[in-house]
Amino acid sequence: MFCLIRLTYVLSDSEALDITLLALSTGGYEEHSPGRGMNGAGGPTAMMDPLEDPVPGVGTYEDFNTIDWVREKSKDRDRHREITSKSKESMGALLHRISDAFSGWLLMLLVGLMSGALAGGIDISAHWLTDMKEGVCLNGFWFNHEHCCWTSNEPTFKERDKCPDWKSWAELIVGTGEGGFAYVVNYMMFMFWALLFSFLAVTLVKSFAPYACGSGIPEIKTILSGFIIRGYLGKWTLIVKTITLVLAVSSGLSLGKEGPLVHVACCCANILCHLFTKYRKNEAKRREVLSAAAAVGVSVAFGAPIGGVLFSLEEVSYYFPLKTLWRSFFAALVAAFTLRSINPFGNSRLVLFYVEFHAPWHLLELGPFILLGIFGGLWGALFIRANIAWCRRRKTTLLGHYPIVEVLVVAGVTALVSFPNSYTRMSGAELIKELFNDCSLLDSSQLCRYKQVPPRPHRPADSGLYTALWQLSLALLFKMGITVVTFGMKVPSGLFIPSMAVGAIAGRLLGVGMEQLAYYNHDWAIFRGWCTPGADCITPGLYAMVGAAACLGGVTRMTVSLVVIMFELTGGLEYIVPLMAATMTSKWVADAFGREGIYEAHIRLNGYPFLEPKEEFEHKSLAVDVMRPRRADPALAVLTQEGMTVEEAEALVASTRYSGFPVVVSQESQRLVGFVLRRDLLISIDNARQRQEGVVSSSQVLFTEHPPAQAADAPPPVRLRSLLDLSPFTVADHTPMDITVDIFRKLGLRQCLVTHNGRLLGIITKKDILKHMAQMANRDPDSILFN
Amino acid sequence: MFCLIRLTYVLSDSEALDITLLALSTGGYEEHSPGRGMNGAGGPTAMMDPLEDPVPGVGTYEDFNTIDWVREKSKDRDRHREITSKSKESMGALLHRISDAFSGWLLMLLVGLMSGALAGGIDISAHWLTDMKEGVCLNGFWFNHEHCCWTSNEPTFKERDKCPDWKSWAELIVGTGEGGFAYVVNYMMFMFWALLFSFLAVTLVKSFAPYACGSGIPEIKTILSGFIIRGYLGKWTLIVKTITLVLAVSSGLSLGKEGPLVHVACCCANILCHLFTKYRKNEAKRREVLSAAAAVGVSVAFGAPIGGVLFSLEEVSYYFPLKTLWRSFFAALVAAFTLRSINPFGNSRLVLFYVEFHAPWHLLELGPFILLGIFGGLWGALFIRANIAWCRRRKTTLLGHYPIVEVLVVAGVTALVSFPNSYTRMSGAELIKELFNDCSLLDSSQLCRYKQVPPRPHRPADSGLYTALWQLSLALLFKMGITVVTFGMKVPSGLFIPSMAVGAIAGRLLGVGMEQLAYYNHDWAIFRGWCTPGADCITPGLYAMVGAAACLGGVTRMTVSLVVIMFELTGGLEYIVPLMAATMTSKWVADAFGREGIYEAHIRLNGYPFLEPKEEFEHKSLAVDVMRPRRADPALAVLTQEGMTVEEAEALVASTRYSGFPVVVSQESQRLVGFVLRRDLLISIDNARQRQEGVVSSSQVLFTEHPPAQAADAPPPVRLRSLLDLSPFTVADHTPMDITVDIFRKLGLRQCLVTHNGRLLGIITKKDILKHMAQMANRDPDSILFN
Repeated sequence: MFCLIRLTYVLSDSEALDITLLALSTGGYEEHSPGRGMNGAGGPTAMMDPLEDPVPGVGTYEDFNTIDWVREKSKDRDRHREITSKSKESMGALLHRISDAFSGWLLMLLVGLMSGALAGGIDISAHWLTDMKEGVCLNGFWFNHEHCCWTSNEPTFKERDKCPDWKSWAELIVGTGEGGFAYVVNYMMFMFWALLFSFLAVTLVKSFAPYACGSGIPEIKTILSGFIIRGYLGKWTLIVKTITLVLAVSSGLSLGKEGPLVHVACCCANILCHLFTKYRKNEAKRREVLSAAAAVGVSVAFGAPIGGVLFSLEEVSYYFPLKTLWRSFFAALVAAFTLRSINPFGNSRLVLFYVEFHAPWHLLELGPFILLGIFGGLWGALFIRANIAWCRRRKTTLLGHYPIVEVLVVAGVTALVSFPNSYTRMSGAELIKELFNDCSLLDSSQLCRYKQVPPRPHRPADSGLYTALWQLSLALLFKMGITVVTFGMKVPSGLFIPSMAVGAIAGRLLGVGMEQLAYYNHDWAIFRGWCTPGADCITPGLYAMVGAAACLGGVTRMTVSLVVIMFELTGGLEYIVPLMAATMTSKWVADAFGREGIYEAHIRLNGYPFLEPKEEFEHKSLAVDVMRPRRADPALAVLTQEGMTVEEAEALVASTRYSGFPVVVSQESQRLVGFVLRRDLLISIDNARQRQEGVVSSSQVLFTEHPPAQAADAPPPVRLRSLLDLSPFTVADHTPMDITVDIFRKLGLRQCLVTHNGRLLGIITKKDILKHMAQMANRDPDSILFN
Repeated sequence: MFCLIRLTYVLSDSEALDITLLALSTGGYEEHSPGRGMNGAGGPTAMMDPLEDPVPGVGTYEDFNTIDWVREKSKDRDRHREITSKSKESMGALLHRISDAFSGWLLMLLVGLMSGALAGGIDISAHWLTDMKEGVCLNGFWFNHEHCCWTSNEPTFKERDKCPDWKSWAELIVGTGEGGFAYVVNYMMFMFWALLFSFLAVTLVKSFAPYACGSGIPEIKTILSGFIIRGYLGKWTLIVKTITLVLAVSSGLSLGKEGPLVHVACCCANILCHLFTKYRKNEAKRREVLSAAAAVGVSVAFGAPIGGVLFSLEEVSYYFPLKTLWRSFFAALVAAFTLRSINPFGNSRLVLFYVEFHAPWHLLELGPFILLGIFGGLWGALFIRANIAWCRRRKTTLLGHYPIVEVLVVAGVTALVSFPNSYTRMSGAELIKELFNDCSLLDSSQLCRYKQVPPRPHRPADSGLYTALWQLSLALLFKMGITVVTFGMKVPSGLFIPSMAVGAIAGRLLGVGMEQLAYYNHDWAIFRGWCTPGADCITPGLYAMVGAAACLGGVTRMTVSLVVIMFELTGGLEYIVPLMAATMTSKWVADAFGREGIYEAHIRLNGYPFLEPKEEFEHKSLAVDVMRPRRADPALAVLTQEGMTVEEAEALVASTRYSGFPVVVSQESQRLVGFVLRRDLLISIDNARQRQEGVVSSSQVLFTEHPPAQAADAPPPVRLRSLLDLSPFTVADHTPMDITVDIFRKLGLRQCLVTHNGRLLGIITKKDILKHMAQMANRDPDSILFN
């Protein structure tokens, strides 16, 4: 995320970006695809074989531009029609048709396999490196703590955690694991490794793939809405992000791997798309695959295939047809299955934090659950404000110039503070697991130190539990603070686990509080019906689960997908109502402070041209108020379908910055014929000058179907009708902007022409709409940077 | 479903339907709503208070017409803007704004509560009446069998089922439950009740609410896509459908209550919409509520809230914004929770068929699972063909004239055949539960009669099991046949349970087969790795579950929602992969025989104007090929914005059947100004003649903003600019039809104007598109009946 901020900060003239930034693209998001049909999909020659296209580059997009969904989809339908009609001719063509029909499913299978395998590798490596901070295995340094003790020859050891083959750094260096000096040595080694990992991570990102930083979800949302960021999903990004994600997670920074895994899955999908012409050459089709890949990412991050699909649908995707729903689900399943076969958690379950609570919840508990929802909403709103303010500061002050120093300082502080507190020293996922856990009788966890008063369900807290609560409270404050500055640094960083950790701590604290309240006051009216003495009526682990959902909901504003992820994560189908109550409350509370989730806030911070599908356009302006040219401006630059020379056309193009030009019957009538893109026009004129004999500056540019009579000595005309989009979208000048915005969103338009009583009047682009919306919301309209 | 078939069969002139059928509408689907704004949403006076609208009826729709989504949504935004701007003025208006914002959630709460309560009532009544066929409770005839034995004073009885308070009919009538005569008496009573219940059901439907028949899902899909069928979701339909559903289910016919419950929930939602102005007056907003209600229906039918939401999204809804997703989920949860509080199944679980399998599945078992998928696909394709052929026969022959006789014959045959076989005698839901069941050691079910060879997991089948298999095979054949003729009769009838029953029987048969194969051949290579002797490696219940999913998938072509419903139904999160493999196979196989699911097939059979969002438009026609007038026809009937008299306008309207007319600058230029609806125009002219002084036939009709100079003695003009939609949708004549179809679908248009170089050329309506698509698929284009 930070990467783009830096670029826009260096290059203040945003209009020039699309050319300048081409040089910066590092990966293979989109190779030049010269084979695209050069004629608009609507032209009568639309069936021309795209491979015979003589002008390379026509029909492709530049970096940092918006694609035209309608044309892309239409092009794909043309391609499909062609294959279908050819398939009746020969056996080979029929096979081609069948393989084409199944290529989408095959691609999904590959994406699932590759993402699942990568996620498994990331899990295993991160686990190993995280344990490396504490010690090393004598049987082989490549074993992590758990694995080391499994492979140990000793049959039994004092404690599960303490096998003789695993040595802490103090034991290795000073020979003993006990005492103050050993503690200091372990502390120093912990910090050393944390700093080393974070240094490696930030250096790799900075040197090889600036796009690998952040969570990637804001950019993926923007790309899925039809924007082009070359290299963002390329192979370099994939390699570097995979490695640095492991390093960043292992360094103990307050970040998760979930968002970055979505980015990794999308990179896999984008790279695999190059194997299939259908997806390589069509930006719209590719985005369908990327939507499915987003589902795959969440599926492998949490082992939650259904939640992943709903996450893609609710949070990330722009265009999500039913076909994509099916394919996403398939890919998400394959990925989850692959991950389970690799079995990185060693428990052969698909679920990450399996819980089994032994007591059902009571209706009255909805009260505390809603309280947790309010906490989650407040924390979400606060987090977004603080994080955005911090990122803005990074953009505008010297802070942004020293990303490595920043990461090292934050990693150092994190390690320094988190080592003494066992709840911050453990990784976020472990912490959440511990907090979700329901105390069984023999549980050794400090959170389960209840006084042993038989019969068992009596649960007065022991002093051990009180210590744990103090530590948790400190951990809560620390996590809340450090996450704000961590998210947005120049390392891969996800938000899910830190947000959930904050919520889980708060929930557990409230849960234990409620439990003790009920224990000491089970004769109160509210407890009387269901908390009989001796019965176990309140489950603190459930409160932690609800709190985690509430905080994550407040930050991301997910609802349905979040609930589904939570119950897939924990296997608890019975807790939908508490989870839903908390997430809805959290969303409502957070929305009261600002309607944007963290991803939308980052999209706006970075100035991406993203037309939020959830936000309603509330103002009563008309198309005529938004279009260019404004009333006072000179008339719209148009081409006429005949009568213009090459020179005049080039002059018109040079004098403006529009990305396309309407073609009209004549300047007087202003009756619209079609629309031609600047890029296509320039490429084709250049091509004609070089290849077509006799073309000079005074040659006529013709957009008509039949050439008009010309003087015998006139130079040959340049015929460009095939470039023309004969069905440009038009709206009447009186069309309310809410309808226009709806059309842009639903059809995925790039621009739309405005007419009055059949005469061409102006043009509205996506950028005009975004600027207008920013103006209406009293924001700076120039914050929208790209086209 | 049958109801509409009958109507269209009687009235052959479909064009006249929209007037004639008004008289037939029985319920309150849409009351006349005179308060709608009369000006098009685009007009500059759009902010005029809709309550001051002087012309009642303008802006409303006739029965069997399509709504205009864009205008409806725009109207709602206008309303919302007005409330927002007013809210700054006074405290009351602010409260109004807040209550308006929460009215959607309140409505959802009410829909959930009402549907949950109704579903609970239906479950309890159907259970009672079903048991009534076998006997009666002496403690009180209103107790069902299970409840009767619960309330019994006897502490223990021989078998769980045989408590002394429950008397079979034979015991009551001839004094003994044993022997051949008693069997005959029970048989006769069983048939008597089955015939009585089905007679009551069909008579009630026929007399009071013809729309209450069928499953209702095809019609609801059509309504959600923007069609108006008055009375289809009215209070009469609700009352009659609720009662007759209980009767139909109890009569033992091969039908389920799931589809009808969706209809019932939609009726509840539609009736509750009348409490809120926002939803009463806006067809688009109302459809959002109906989408959520469809989710509620499935949620209460299966106790599957998430599956319900996905069902609504995947199968039923046309327009499903994220807001609807959240609200659907909320309503589905409330409904499931209400139903659980009523606790009709007496097990306090949300899930209908809770299963717990003790053995995991093996990768090699995917083979038989895919076989089940193929069976499901073949059965689905076959069922759809056979059922449609039968329904077409019903439409075209005398059969359709005697619905009561038909129902009685089918019910009689069903009762006659199903009584002797215990697997057909029990209700569909019980059968499925039995088949899904995993045999525990002490299970008394006939399906668990294994030879008792210790240790337990040895499982050679006993002769009892072989008998059960024979009975199941016969039940399978019977169910397959009878369901084809049952679905579509004039009683409420759902398809889910019968389809699942067919699949579950087939699955269980295959499962037991596999189990015995593995038992006797555990040294075969394929079994060696995982089926060690003495281990329990194959779970027939899981095969039944997979088979049920496959068959339901083949019939309805659901995939993701089906898998989610299945695991919510059974609580088994671990079986996603087998379920998904079977449903995807089933969908692919069935799609190879025809791409339509049963609901789409019934929509087409009934000729509803439904633009299938899943089907791609594959042909390369252009807008100019589809628009009216065709090349040879006379020019399009247009109004001019000035210069026409009232008489001329009326003559133009009378001479055509178009539902609207473009208004142009002048006949020569054909430059488009706006669009006026026939209904609005006629109502307004009538109104002007009656109320406005001096309006005569020679008065001018003016659509201009400023009146032109007129002769002093000219009669006062009728000014109709406020009727004008100033932003009609236009496409260029060269626009490919695939893009046009996309626009119609995504924006929900009723009609679209076609221009050539800025001149008006023609018009395309939804019906034109459907006719064109039918023509292209070599179907009869006149099968599309309504507008």
